Parts: sequence; C-alpha cells; structure tokens
Amino acid sequence: MAHHLYLLTGQNEKYRTLIEEQQIPGLQLTQSKQEATILLADPPLAARSVYEFPALRWLQSTFAGVEALMQPHLRQDYQLTNVKGIFGPAITEYVLGYMIAHYRHFNLYREQQQEKSWLPHTYETLTGKTVVILGTGNIASFLAHSARNMGLVVIGVNRSGQQPESTAFHEVYAVEDIQKALAMANIVVSILPNTASSESLLNLQTLSACQQVLLFNVGRGRTLKEPDLIPAIEEGAVQHAFLDVFITEPLASSHPFWSHPQITLTPHIAATSFPEQVIDIFAENLKLWMQGQPLKYVIDFEKGY
Amino acid sequence: MAHHLYLLTGQNEKYRTLIEEQQIPGLQLTQSKQEATILLADPPLAARSVYEFPALRWLQSTFAGVEALMQPHLRQDYQLTNVKGIFGPAITEYVLGYMIAHYRHFNLYREQQQEKSWLPHTYETLTGKTVVILGTGNIASFLAHSARNMGLVVIGVNRSGQQPESTAFHEVYAVEDIQKALAMANIVVSILPNTASSESLLNLQTLSACQQVLLFNVGRGRTLKEPDLIPAIEEGAVQHAFLDVFITEPLASSHPFWSHPQITLTPHIAATSFPEQVIDIFAENLKLWMQGQPLKYVIDFEKGY
Repeated sequence: MAHHLYLLTGQNEKYRTLIEEQQIPGLQLTQSKQEATILLADPPLAARSVYEFPALRWLQSTFAGVEALMQPHLRQDYQLTNVKGIFGPAITEYVLGYMIAHYRHFNLYREQQQEKSWLPHTYETLTGKTVVILGTGNIASFLAHSARNMGLVVIGVNRSGQQPESTAFHEVYAVEDIQKALAMANIVVSILPNTASSESLLNLQTLSACQQVLLFNVGRGRTLKEPDLIPAIEEGAVQHAFLDVFITEPLASSHPFWSHPQITLTPHIAATSFPEQVIDIFAENLKLWMQGQPLKYVIDFEKGY
Repeated sequence: MAHHLYLLTGQNEKYRTLIEEQQIPGLQLTQSKQEATILLADPPLAARSVYEFPALRWLQSTFAGVEALMQPHLRQDYQLTNVKGIFGPAITEYVLGYMIAHYRHFNLYREQQQEKSWLPHTYETLTGKTVVILGTGNIASFLAHSARNMGLVVIGVNRSGQQPESTAFHEVYAVEDIQKALAMANIVVSILPNTASSESLLNLQTLSACQQVLLFNVGRGRTLKEPDLIPAIEEGAVQHAFLDVFITEPLASSHPFWSHPQITLTPHIAATSFPEQVIDIFAENLKLWMQGQPLKYVIDFEKGY
C-alpha cells in the first residue's frame, strides 16, 4: 500500500528534492488533497486547509511550534508530530552569543571603531554567573550543558521541580517557586512552549524577584506579559531583554519594544528548522509509520505539546 | 629574612589592598627602589625603570605578554615570571562570541531594529565548522575544548605537530604544514606569543591557503603581517578579520583597518589580567619563592616565552 505525501510548506521545492533523493519505497508524492494520507506541513499553512484533506492520518510539522493547529475549532482526528532535537545548538548559540556580546561590549566597540576611538573597558566574564532556564526539556538541557561548559551555574525551572535524566542542571525548581530561582539569576532564559501554565508566567510580579538580569525569550511570545516588560526594566529588575518571539508576529511597527535601548529584538530566528534536519526526522518517523510503530515527537492535543 | 615587594602597575592601590588582605608573613611592601627584591609589575612600566632596582631578584609580571622586557639592551639577571591559566575563559568568550555574532547576523539585526524592519535571514551554525587554532598551549587548549563542545572540528598548529596532553584537538599540524591546516579552516585563531618563529607567520602567502575564513588575532600583533591583510580580504581568502592586537598600540587613527567593513577591531581587550587573578598567581609563586622552590610560569629569556 502506497503512502501519499502532500507538501504544504514555504519551501516545497527544497523538500521535494530532499525526498526524491531519499528514494523511499512505498512513498509517493501527491498533488491531490483527496488522496493525501500524510502531510509534511508548516502549521500556519496547515491550519488554513486541514479540512481539505479527507484521507489525512498523520501530519508531520516542520516547526517545533504547533499552536496554530491547537485551536479548538480545528480537527484533531489525525496524528500530529513536530520536530525536536534540532534546535538545541541554534538556541544555544543565540543565547550564549548575545550574553557575550552584552558583557563584552560588542556594540560599544563597534561604535568606537566607527569613531576611530581606542578605549578599553572593563568587562565581566560568564564564569560564575547564574543562568536560570525556564524549561528542562531537550533544548533547555542542551543549553544547560553548554552553559555549564562555559563556567555558568545553571538552574532549571519546570513543573515538577525534578531533575531531568542525565542532567546538566545544578538545581531544578518547581514553577511554583519560580521567584526563588529568579532571585539567584544573572541571566533568565525562557524556552517554554505555549501552554496554559506558561502564559504570562513572566510578569511584573514574578520579574520583580530579579535584579538587573539579562532576560531572554526564545520560547513563545505569550510566556512574557509584554506590557510588563518596560516597567520591569524601569524598576531595575531587567537590565536588558533579548526577545526573539512575540505575541503577534511580525511585531507591529508601532510597538514600543523596537526603539527601547534596553531591548534587543530579532525576528524569530533563534532557531530555524532547516529542511535537511526536518527531513531526517520525517524519514525516521516515516519508517516507524510504515512499520506500524509509535511515532516520535507525537503532540498530545490535550496538553498542547 | 623579609622579602621587599615594590608595586609597579597601573593599579597599585588595588594590588596593595589585595596583598594587605592576604597578610603574608615575611612579605613587606616597600616604597624604596633600593630595597626591593621583588617586583610585581606591568612589563611596559618595568622596562623603563628596571635598572633602578639594584636588589631585584624576581619580577612577577601582571601580563601574559612580556615582550617589553625581552628587548636585548635590558638586563636579564633576575627571574621573570608571567601569568598564565587565567586568560582561557576570556579569550574563548571573545572568539566564540564574535563567531556567533558574525554567523547569526547580530549587526544586521541591530540595524534592522533601528529601522523597525522584521526580516529574518538564513544563517549558519557553528556545528561542523572547522576552526584552526595557531598555538596549542594553555589558552589554545581551553578554546579547543570549548569549541569542540560547541560542535566545531578543532585543528591545532604548533612547532612539533604533536598533540598536547589531555587534548581536545582533533588533529595537530606542525607549523611547516600550516597551509595544509589553513586550507581546511572556516575559522582561524592565532593565540601565538611573540617569538621569532611567529613573526609575520600570517602573511599573504600563508593566508592564500584560506577560503573565506573568519580570521582572529588575539595573540600578538606581530604574528599578522598587517599590510597583507587587506589584500587577503580582497582576494577572498579572508571573509572577516577580528583583531584585538596590533604591531603598534593604540592603533594609529590613520590606519586603514579602522574603517574597513570586513575588519572588526577591539582595543586589546580579549583577555585582561584581573588583579584578583594575578594576585592568586603571585601568592602561589611567593610561597614557592620563600621555600626556595622553582617558580611557576618562568620566562626563558632566550626563547622569549
């Protein structure tokens, strides 16, 4: 029995080439929505047309974030899998890179170079600083390991307060105790997915436990209560915020974050799904699917992750 | 017998406080150049006045770089020690930070933020890239270890071509084969001290083995033949240079490096000797000195390191 795969991504030609290179027996690429049993799809595109695929049984997301498909009015009668395990290095580079750029004055030296000004400044190193990571899953654990290698003390925050397996965290706090963790932080990094319990978790009250932290949001926009950020900066809880995700993307050009000197914002680029990596995950899952085995990275529609 | 210590640094008050806190029996701080047997000194300051200390037996440098005291007309009738082992983390942060800032477009995103422009760009990650490190000593080994943790392939270049102990290098080449190593590089980092064999080691001929590398000089200015850099950029061997050290410092404001778009320059700040760290090394050496044991980090006036 042939499996009929329909591509619904922003990079269909790239995916088509990668799939054809793999020459997978029993898999046919189809242009027919009627016929398709498998979708390889960007969730925002799939959310618009998921009812047009009557034979759909499995949707492999090309993104980690599948919120678009979690909306309550949408069908949930198919298996949904996302991509995991490929974002750790990208997120880690983003976070460590901006940490270093901040403490080592990269922007200041760039301005001085433009002025031909030779003026050294004292600096702080990462060694001995404390990073609090919200989340202890795959990406958070990768970051924890790298941060520890760079000499940081690493504290995690998750639902249970339990250490994950083969952990690099020095300590893990339960989310109820988030303020105890934040009080120790020099740097706070949110990698949380979008769930009911992460919504607005970072607000003026919780952030008030911080003192002059660097705050990173590389998880989901809704974790940060956006109107509370500038007040938290003004009261000294946050020294600088690095934001890659926002409640509404692209961020409206009228938004005050764009021009705040203590906010660095990037257009959701901390971790991108490279098609080459997505295809590796898809091919692995396809093999399991054809064998009737449980898939990897299955999303629970109840939990939302 | 008391040991008389004279301070000859840019931060004498800081050093005085740190030494007084340690309350070392048998050590007296002195203001008398006649009396001083030990100097704790910045080499450029010591080079100007080393003949004014008739009782000098040991000079502990506060810098790693002791070239100023290697000049042939200067006395060499005392023990000279420098500081080692404290620069690894600082150099590593500088190099990894600028690598990430480059590949992840930090400057471009900063400009886009000023224009309120939401525009993602594709990027490269460090994973799988090859870094060639000139030097395999203490600092180079620290960097090698961290770079390997970040997913880079790490190749060293030294005199012998032999791996150092407990090495993180995947391969080590002898300096005669430097072009073989450079041909594999995405990133080249020089951490070499200033010696006859490192002088102008990076010149148009050797650099021509490179293709679009990021070139870091965080060792000594003379390792790079400065007039050859812009031609190496123009022929595509070097994509971007990150320079922290120069033949003449401060760099003259007429120097073409200041305004070249493919050169990032910083005012010799990749690694600073923090007095707290220097004092730890001095205290350890002082104990050995008082016991008549061999000192750590002794400089060989013949070799220059």
